[in-house]
Amino acid sequence: STFTSLLVCSLLQMGWGDLGAFGEPSKETPNLDQMASEGMLFLDFYTASPLCSPSRAALLTGRLPVRNGFYTTNAHARNAYTPQDIVGGIPDSELLLPELLKKAGYVNKIIGKWHLGHRPQFHPLKHGFDEWFGSPNCHFGPFDNRALPNIPVYRDWEMIGRYYEDFKIDRKTGEANLTQIYLQEALDFISKQQASQQPFFLYWAIDATHAPVYASKHFLGTSQRGLYGDAVREIDDSIGKILKHLQKLGISENTFVFFTSDNGAALISAPQQGGSNGRFLCGKQTTFEGGMREPAIAWWPGHIPAGGVSHQLGNVMDLFTTSLSLAGLQPPGDRQIDGIDLSPAILQGKLIDRPIFYYRGDEMMAVRVGLYKAHYWTWSNSWEEYSKGIDFCPGQNVSGVTTHTQEEHTTLPLLFHLGRDPGEKYPLSFVSDEYQKVLGQISAVVQQHKATMVPGVPQLNVCDKAVMNWSPPGCEKLGKCLTPPKSDPKKCFWPH
Amino acid sequence: STFTSLLVCSLLQMGWGDLGAFGEPSKETPNLDQMASEGMLFLDFYTASPLCSPSRAALLTGRLPVRNGFYTTNAHARNAYTPQDIVGGIPDSELLLPELLKKAGYVNKIIGKWHLGHRPQFHPLKHGFDEWFGSPNCHFGPFDNRALPNIPVYRDWEMIGRYYEDFKIDRKTGEANLTQIYLQEALDFISKQQASQQPFFLYWAIDATHAPVYASKHFLGTSQRGLYGDAVREIDDSIGKILKHLQKLGISENTFVFFTSDNGAALISAPQQGGSNGRFLCGKQTTFEGGMREPAIAWWPGHIPAGGVSHQLGNVMDLFTTSLSLAGLQPPGDRQIDGIDLSPAILQGKLIDRPIFYYRGDEMMAVRVGLYKAHYWTWSNSWEEYSKGIDFCPGQNVSGVTTHTQEEHTTLPLLFHLGRDPGEKYPLSFVSDEYQKVLGQISAVVQQHKATMVPGVPQLNVCDKAVMNWSPPGCEKLGKCLTPPKSDPKKCFWPH
Repeated sequence: STFTSLLVCSLLQMGWGDLGAFGEPSKETPNLDQMASEGMLFLDFYTASPLCSPSRAALLTGRLPVRNGFYTTNAHARNAYTPQDIVGGIPDSELLLPELLKKAGYVNKIIGKWHLGHRPQFHPLKHGFDEWFGSPNCHFGPFDNRALPNIPVYRDWEMIGRYYEDFKIDRKTGEANLTQIYLQEALDFISKQQASQQPFFLYWAIDATHAPVYASKHFLGTSQRGLYGDAVREIDDSIGKILKHLQKLGISENTFVFFTSDNGAALISAPQQGGSNGRFLCGKQTTFEGGMREPAIAWWPGHIPAGGVSHQLGNVMDLFTTSLSLAGLQPPGDRQIDGIDLSPAILQGKLIDRPIFYYRGDEMMAVRVGLYKAHYWTWSNSWEEYSKGIDFCPGQNVSGVTTHTQEEHTTLPLLFHLGRDPGEKYPLSFVSDEYQKVLGQISAVVQQHKATMVPGVPQLNVCDKAVMNWSPPGCEKLGKCLTPPKSDPKKCFWPH
Repeated sequence: STFTSLLVCSLLQMGWGDLGAFGEPSKETPNLDQMASEGMLFLDFYTASPLCSPSRAALLTGRLPVRNGFYTTNAHARNAYTPQDIVGGIPDSELLLPELLKKAGYVNKIIGKWHLGHRPQFHPLKHGFDEWFGSPNCHFGPFDNRALPNIPVYRDWEMIGRYYEDFKIDRKTGEANLTQIYLQEALDFISKQQASQQPFFLYWAIDATHAPVYASKHFLGTSQRGLYGDAVREIDDSIGKILKHLQKLGISENTFVFFTSDNGAALISAPQQGGSNGRFLCGKQTTFEGGMREPAIAWWPGHIPAGGVSHQLGNVMDLFTTSLSLAGLQPPGDRQIDGIDLSPAILQGKLIDRPIFYYRGDEMMAVRVGLYKAHYWTWSNSWEEYSKGIDFCPGQNVSGVTTHTQEEHTTLPLLFHLGRDPGEKYPLSFVSDEYQKVLGQISAVVQQHKATMVPGVPQLNVCDKAVMNWSPPGCEKLGKCLTPPKSDPKKCFWPH
């Protein structure tokens, strides 16, 4: 067959340093490491936001969250996502990857977390996906179904149960067999598509590494790293099984597979419920490297040279553009697309010059150009939060860098050389020749970016308990409809 | 042929995180990474001291520095080494690996830094080596030959020049072609031994990654990481050439090759002159993981299964015992040997239960048993030094752990689980069941260790400017003899 199917595995908040191939000291990811040795390892790959929902919106639209609306203007430089009471979601005006692929005959499935809004108009099947197994929000809980409803699990248009009720997660032992269910869904979908000879896009967005972390019985207690490591081992094992399945069905050379994550490891939950960002600074919620640099592997036997290592600056938004390219489609021409086509980097080892922008809300906090990164704003979180023990950079305080007040550096950005100093510990001297020369180059990039930036309508400003998952479609068949409280829309509170 | 030659590459202060295979984000060590993929990677391998000389004394004697005399009692828990004015060195009573191998017909060569004393009685050719190309001390300088002489470079018994005079190191550009010279020495020695069909032990103790860091012209400016990375690239390239040479000569299946380092990366010199310990805590001079966990690779085609990964707790002292075992020899029975025979771990993938002890001077600072590490004393360095900017843990302060006063925890050790928490950031609660259970096991190990510990005569207590490298053997032929000052022995000052 001549089509190219697409499989994107996007783990929730797995960190750069969580894989053996990226130096995790327990080296417990033999399948992912083998995937890398058979494919291409990306060492300089980024997400578009240090938080889940905006990152996933960017992946599926190829656009920065500040353009596609996945940000807030409630306060300056705040991360925002889609909790149960969020009113917004992915706007109809956005074109998602599956919507475009559909026109080329692709069958699209999402397995796992959607994260782009849970109200009816935001349903993934209204935005290009043909099938869905998973949930709209994070698997927080258990809730009492009074103050908060438990999160529903959908099959396609309707819910088929709720977490903690019909899909067990044992908060004491960490046991849940959800990854096994997600794995089986993936294998079945791939088999079905192979049998019907239709190209597919599978978005495997699993969440075992997001707190509350879980693993199935077979994997519990098997890792040196504790429960988090058990979850990683199960995911590693599952990805190995998916790749072997593609090979067994004879379609591995027709399927482009990309593995990455949506934000850096949540160090605040480490070590029991959070992973590792290797030697990078801080984690999830921050625009330091630990918050936004991601593990990434491309695999496509017969097309990608085995054992390749790429320093191409990549971004989850590139998966949009690259996937379209591999499917023989053009990206939409009526809007700004931030993702680039990585296929020359992946297939011919080329290096494409492009910057990486680090945003919190609608504030450009930092930019990377080549090996240099300039911070225009620094902030980890507020003193108020920090004094309560909320620390996004545990054991990693860098004076003047991991600041607890929002520090503006727009006239004299903090500049780091990420090759010599990947941990962002040693800012270049403002008076050095190197600083002056590099800042000139970066300033031009930033100026051009800002001059053409048209923010979208912010979707993550308003929260309302009435919009929670009280009565998702299908609830009546299960006797699981709950009565919503009275509508009381408010500004969402985004502390960091 | 049936003999097993032995090649130990021991880099000066290369860190655990400096290799691509161990997660260095620039991934610039393709040859070492390939060596690992063809051999066995050791993830839990240690040195016997967080400083150079004691580490090397331990490697060559199979004994802890506190036993072989490579320590000081001038002050509590101090690191000591062999500067030019040191009076002591390796005692005649110690049996070194080459001395023992000699009896089995091995020809032994050391290339690079000796580090076990520079006075005549400590000469490596008096301690079992047959050949030497290199220097007795670190390549500090340039000196004025008045206050301090430049360090001599020896060929076998005699000096053939001095650093900065006959062996150039450009402190401004970092250019020096020493690694190329050391490489050629290694290739020539291997060729000679292959031609004469005699088994050999080559101890390749090169030093380009020790400040002042250097690289040859061809490698300068080639690394993303700056000069330090240039040095790493040159070493990586050299090791690739050595392994290919063994293969070309048809003796790779008769040569056991082991790559490791002598202490953790010197973070105090980073990023320009120091490397990376990955996500481990602190660096050289400390008994945190960053100071003592080392990169390690065993390579022996046809004997070691390719692509193996071992969690065996290993130590540089094991190279003594393992080498003897591979040469068919017994370790001496008249003394305590701390190294163990790793061949079952290397050849059959077995795991041998054994503790790792972390010493500073004659103080056991910490011990690792399984995945647990107990700190009995914590110290990075003094407030006095720290206030001058000497920081062994830059950007890594962990309150109550990286202390600047010597903190005794002998009744309630700080306990870490290195699987869940490799960065030693989260001590276990003293009141947890886990703490109580594990401490009982560790206490038994420590008690037994201390009960049988008989310290050797400390060699690193006395310093004297008169013993410096003023007039090494051979100086007269070169007209490079200098007049020593009057003898004035003093207690050496060891600040940390």
